[in-house]
Amino acid sequence: MSSSFGQIFRVTTFGESHGAGVGVVIDGIPGNMRLSLDIVQEWLDRRRPGQSELTTSRDESDRVECLSGTENGRTLGGPLMLFVRNTNIKPSDYKDVQTVFRPGHADYTMLEKYGVTASSGGGRSSARETIGRVAAGAVAWQLIREFHKDFDIVGWVHSVKDLSIDKATEQTLESTVTRKIVDQSAVRCPDAATSQKMVAIITQAKGAGDSVGGIIRCVIRGVPTGLGEPVFDKLEADLAKAVMSLPATKGFEIGSGFAGTKMSGSAHNDALIKRGEKIATRTNHSGGVVGGLSNGELITFNVAFKPVSTIFIAQDTVDRSGREVTFKPDGGRHDPCVLPRAVPMVESMAALVIADHVLRHRALAPFEP
Amino acid sequence: MSSSFGQIFRVTTFGESHGAGVGVVIDGIPGNMRLSLDIVQEWLDRRRPGQSELTTSRDESDRVECLSGTENGRTLGGPLMLFVRNTNIKPSDYKDVQTVFRPGHADYTMLEKYGVTASSGGGRSSARETIGRVAAGAVAWQLIREFHKDFDIVGWVHSVKDLSIDKATEQTLESTVTRKIVDQSAVRCPDAATSQKMVAIITQAKGAGDSVGGIIRCVIRGVPTGLGEPVFDKLEADLAKAVMSLPATKGFEIGSGFAGTKMSGSAHNDALIKRGEKIATRTNHSGGVVGGLSNGELITFNVAFKPVSTIFIAQDTVDRSGREVTFKPDGGRHDPCVLPRAVPMVESMAALVIADHVLRHRALAPFEP
Amino acid sequence: MSSSFGQIFRVTTFGESHGAGVGVVIDGIPGNMRLSLDIVQEWLDRRRPGQSELTTSRDESDRVECLSGTENGRTLGGPLMLFVRNTNIKPSDYKDVQTVFRPGHADYTMLEKYGVTASSGGGRSSARETIGRVAAGAVAWQLIREFHKDFDIVGWVHSVKDLSIDKATEQTLESTVTRKIVDQSAVRCPDAATSQKMVAIITQAKGAGDSVGGIIRCVIRGVPTGLGEPVFDKLEADLAKAVMSLPATKGFEIGSGFAGTKMSGSAHNDALIKRGEKIATRTNHSGGVVGGLSNGELITFNVAFKPVSTIFIAQDTVDRSGREVTFKPDGGRHDPCVLPRAVPMVESMAALVIADHVLRHRALAPFEP
Amino acid sequence: MSSSFGQIFRVTTFGESHGAGVGVVIDGIPGNMRLSLDIVQEWLDRRRPGQSELTTSRDESDRVECLSGTENGRTLGGPLMLFVRNTNIKPSDYKDVQTVFRPGHADYTMLEKYGVTASSGGGRSSARETIGRVAAGAVAWQLIREFHKDFDIVGWVHSVKDLSIDKATEQTLESTVTRKIVDQSAVRCPDAATSQKMVAIITQAKGAGDSVGGIIRCVIRGVPTGLGEPVFDKLEADLAKAVMSLPATKGFEIGSGFAGTKMSGSAHNDALIKRGEKIATRTNHSGGVVGGLSNGELITFNVAFKPVSTIFIAQDTVDRSGREVTFKPDGGRHDPCVLPRAVPMVESMAALVIADHVLRHRALAPFEP
Repeated sequence: MSSSFGQIFRVTTFGESHGAGVGVVIDGIPGNMRLSLDIVQEWLDRRRPGQSELTTSRDESDRVECLSGTENGRTLGGPLMLFVRNTNIKPSDYKDVQTVFRPGHADYTMLEKYGVTASSGGGRSSARETIGRVAAGAVAWQLIREFHKDFDIVGWVHSVKDLSIDKATEQTLESTVTRKIVDQSAVRCPDAATSQKMVAIITQAKGAGDSVGGIIRCVIRGVPTGLGEPVFDKLEADLAKAVMSLPATKGFEIGSGFAGTKMSGSAHNDALIKRGEKIATRTNHSGGVVGGLSNGELITFNVAFKPVSTIFIAQDTVDRSGREVTFKPDGGRHDPCVLPRAVPMVESMAALVIADHVLRHRALAPFEP
Repeated sequence: MSSSFGQIFRVTTFGESHGAGVGVVIDGIPGNMRLSLDIVQEWLDRRRPGQSELTTSRDESDRVECLSGTENGRTLGGPLMLFVRNTNIKPSDYKDVQTVFRPGHADYTMLEKYGVTASSGGGRSSARETIGRVAAGAVAWQLIREFHKDFDIVGWVHSVKDLSIDKATEQTLESTVTRKIVDQSAVRCPDAATSQKMVAIITQAKGAGDSVGGIIRCVIRGVPTGLGEPVFDKLEADLAKAVMSLPATKGFEIGSGFAGTKMSGSAHNDALIKRGEKIATRTNHSGGVVGGLSNGELITFNVAFKPVSTIFIAQDTVDRSGREVTFKPDGGRHDPCVLPRAVPMVESMAALVIADHVLRHRALAPFEP
Repeated sequence: MSSSFGQIFRVTTFGESHGAGVGVVIDGIPGNMRLSLDIVQEWLDRRRPGQSELTTSRDESDRVECLSGTENGRTLGGPLMLFVRNTNIKPSDYKDVQTVFRPGHADYTMLEKYGVTASSGGGRSSARETIGRVAAGAVAWQLIREFHKDFDIVGWVHSVKDLSIDKATEQTLESTVTRKIVDQSAVRCPDAATSQKMVAIITQAKGAGDSVGGIIRCVIRGVPTGLGEPVFDKLEADLAKAVMSLPATKGFEIGSGFAGTKMSGSAHNDALIKRGEKIATRTNHSGGVVGGLSNGELITFNVAFKPVSTIFIAQDTVDRSGREVTFKPDGGRHDPCVLPRAVPMVESMAALVIADHVLRHRALAPFEP
Repeated sequence: MSSSFGQIFRVTTFGESHGAGVGVVIDGIPGNMRLSLDIVQEWLDRRRPGQSELTTSRDESDRVECLSGTENGRTLGGPLMLFVRNTNIKPSDYKDVQTVFRPGHADYTMLEKYGVTASSGGGRSSARETIGRVAAGAVAWQLIREFHKDFDIVGWVHSVKDLSIDKATEQTLESTVTRKIVDQSAVRCPDAATSQKMVAIITQAKGAGDSVGGIIRCVIRGVPTGLGEPVFDKLEADLAKAVMSLPATKGFEIGSGFAGTKMSGSAHNDALIKRGEKIATRTNHSGGVVGGLSNGELITFNVAFKPVSTIFIAQDTVDRSGREVTFKPDGGRHDPCVLPRAVPMVESMAALVIADHVLRHRALAPFEP
């Protein structure tokens, strides 16, 4: 119940950070569809730690194995099972977990919920769980592309701490930037000047044993009109749930978002116009979704990530015997800033939502006699 | 598929704005539970238009009928069906809908999705659909209270346009304000000075035929530790989906939210402390949810609402024959600001999420021998 | 959770036998589909008691109201809500229910489950709950026909007590008999000679204050190949669940059924042949489903119904205070044989299954570039 | 969508017969529950082929690996992933599959559904898929036992072809026989005399290259009152779906079943009596389920299995190029009778149903103040 997402394109992740491995079962894929596992590996490589000196040095090779559902590069119609073995486990790095509740981590709430916690690392709460999501995202992306050739998703780091890409630059990026371009930045910020400054901020935080947060911006292109549902399963509602289910997220906004609350209706309403034969909008304050349904414009949204919880500064907390203590981790492998690695996670969650709604729309598209 | 919400406490709304009525079926309620329909009516009355001169003058009496599931003030264990007849329908008010696609409304996307639209009003996209949600929210609230006596939800208008309650005032409100106090303000802003200024802003917008948006802040008290799930169904993810499925919402943030992205980890982490025998946190940047699970602190979140789409100013749009036209509604009944009426909607959606997770936790609570 | 059926074409019934009414919400219907409420009423009329002197004389006019989801004979894409008011309620007829646990009825198990029972009649356990199913079945039938012109479902009474239609006669009926022909028989047995004898058996049971059971046979025609799923949601598994969820059912068999267990594999295997350009089978022991998927042949199944629980003969039981007592109802309205009225229930449940799988197949049909 | 079963205790199987392996993800298990993987292996060993000379000689060691969800013999609250590698794959044995549609097999319908089939063996339609179900069944069994100490499930072969255990013998078995006793028979028939004759029938069929079917009887003990739901998810409906989703099943009956259709109501109704302080029934025609809810008596049901489709006798069929051909397999590994190995499959499916309803009842048990 707790580890599944989607109604027709349905993924179920499993695995703990320090167990045998992590993975995902993906059910609800049409048969005889071309499927590249190389693309899945590429997406996983983008999520992997150790891609630059700014991110954790844990060397996770994270090779994906496809253990069911395909043959000769085609789907068979049954569930795909994608598995990544845990290879670089050093339980000793996490011995703190066994004695204290780490501030900002789920140690205490997991114990309250399940009456037990994994003896090393975060168990299901670890960011390693997102491996299954990213693998599934790469499958979802391929599925959507089979139906909609112009579809694509690109996310990037919009801000770190106080520093953000300026508005004009970003608006240009929205229609043009590619994942390849984004990946050329060590912090996945496609504006070179801003990227450099972000590196400095993160490096400084790392030096201080501290951590930083920021905002990821994501754009979805080539989505046909009419995806989504008008009531509970609005496209923006499902996107919100999708990204708010990622670790460390604190907020979601689509289109004009929180800033839009300061506009008047006459300024906010997107006028409908003709663009060739197609109905389009002059502005895009809606962020590509009206009444829960895609309107054919760019879907644009932001996701807020808090600063990473693991820091190398002494903090007050409570230990498992119930005593107030001071806690400072001995060492271990951690990012001072999760955002660069979170970009493919956000893209993947968005892909899961769109893939599900593509298939849902296929099921319920108006009957044409 | 599209009109249901929740896994165990599961609600399904139905009805169009200008059809026979709107309602909800609620399945997944334990038998023999006390249930007050007066409370349901009270919640609906708070959602009803025409509560002040600032809101639409459509006089919807909105009397709820309970057509199944209870006897003698007790639940029978089967689904509750709550129905509100549409009584004050003037199709003529909506004749525009039949000729043009109104900017900001779902007229165009609904047609693209379903190949047909309701001939009057918004059909399923109308805010009248939320009647079913609020009725269900009032039931959810009662269910949760049976299990957790200290549980409560209070929402209020935090900002209208640029004007917001100041931070210090709001922090005090969080632990103390009641729905009753909130309701004493015509705009549901419990800070009297701010409330007065909000009235002025809304009145001015109304005079100009324009509209305004704003932010609702909501606090949930008395939630036990361990509600939620650590992966996809994180409590904040389900809350995000819940409120982002309301009409006109553009953003959601929990705890520190978007502002939290500017903090360092050492400032953001909530230190764990002992409060009597209970483990608590010194600050509450998390907003009461850690790793997707409630930690026993106040759950606090904000919801961004765009300015209302219906305005009495000429706008560019496209008509149903595909021609670019200028559109200005003749009249009709509309709020210049949806936020006061949206407060009970936000509270209701939050109640639906908590009720579902209360029952889910009941199903899967750790076994104690 | 407990009152819903289907994954995409999803129905939720509600209502108690002696409350305001009973009904159904049907979600997952494509927009702009022609929908006749007259057909829905026709199906309900076939389910209605009082159609002959053999069935209960409770005069339930059972007029269906459609309170959402359609306009001008077309679906709008949102949920249909179909409601039938309870008009002929005489609580006094059921006062026994308040004092004893009636043998064969759910009085005792419902109290154990919910801690409360409806004060009159069976509540959710009443056969009146099936009104919602039959209304939904009539909608499902229309939906399937939009996609598959040759689709139809016909059920009939195959046996009452020891008496059954002979095999040769029945085999002819399978490809030819219509619901209209079936309805010409007072007991819905389309073989005139057998029908007459069945009437005699039922009349005799009625005279003795006793009741009888029997078997309904159902055939589904015009189902395309490939409906169903190969694992848990096999077409026969979903049909089995569907009919076994009807009141008073004790068994289900498809194709060769229990008799097939006595055959050798060489006799049982259906040889594949060409019928024109189409691949078909020479025999149909499979009952139209192979490996959980429809193979294009007739789908044929049987459903066993126990004799009705309400009889006018003294029986041992226990009362609500826990004392062993003898129980004989004073009067009230009851069929000595439920089978004639159960025919449309069986047809409806089969229609719900097929409609859901038609839409599921639409969602996941192999992609063709 | 197609490979999952259960609502709270939810299993998802994956894997093809000739791919890397088969397995199951089980979500919805309370944390901190004792879990023995030895018991899981025991159940799998009972399902394994090659247990006697009557069953296929394919030597599948079928060692289960638990790759997530447990630590130190306790569940962690997240999904269990149980995996069994395919080790003894000889694609050559199945080369026929690539050229002809085997009668009685899903080759043709799978191709129609998915546009592709696995190049060897049955893919998802293979009986190897049931490995995941049996592994999950063994987990379900342990979960139920944690809540209900007297709970158990025992199935056995009631009949092979025309030969069945006599009624009196069987009635005694129902309350007493254990899985251990059943397993002492090569054909899992706990009546020694009948078992011997069954062996003879199967041996004879094997010699003739033919196959036989039969009936499995299953009894569930120690189920508390009130499990199940009164409408669609009746306990008997879920059991019917569960076992009818197993390969080769053609029928299901509970309690009096098809024979009960020949009884009069006065004979069929189970009188309620006091057994000590407990309310019980004098007879058990209901099979332990009344109105969809368990009544505390033995749950008893039968499952019809058709004769195995693979036989070594020439049969008419159609090949993949659409020509009518004669087909006789060259060799390969097959049971002439699936029933002995199907016993743990039936038990497992029953355990999945009960476990799910135990947790569902936990969620919705009447609130007691």
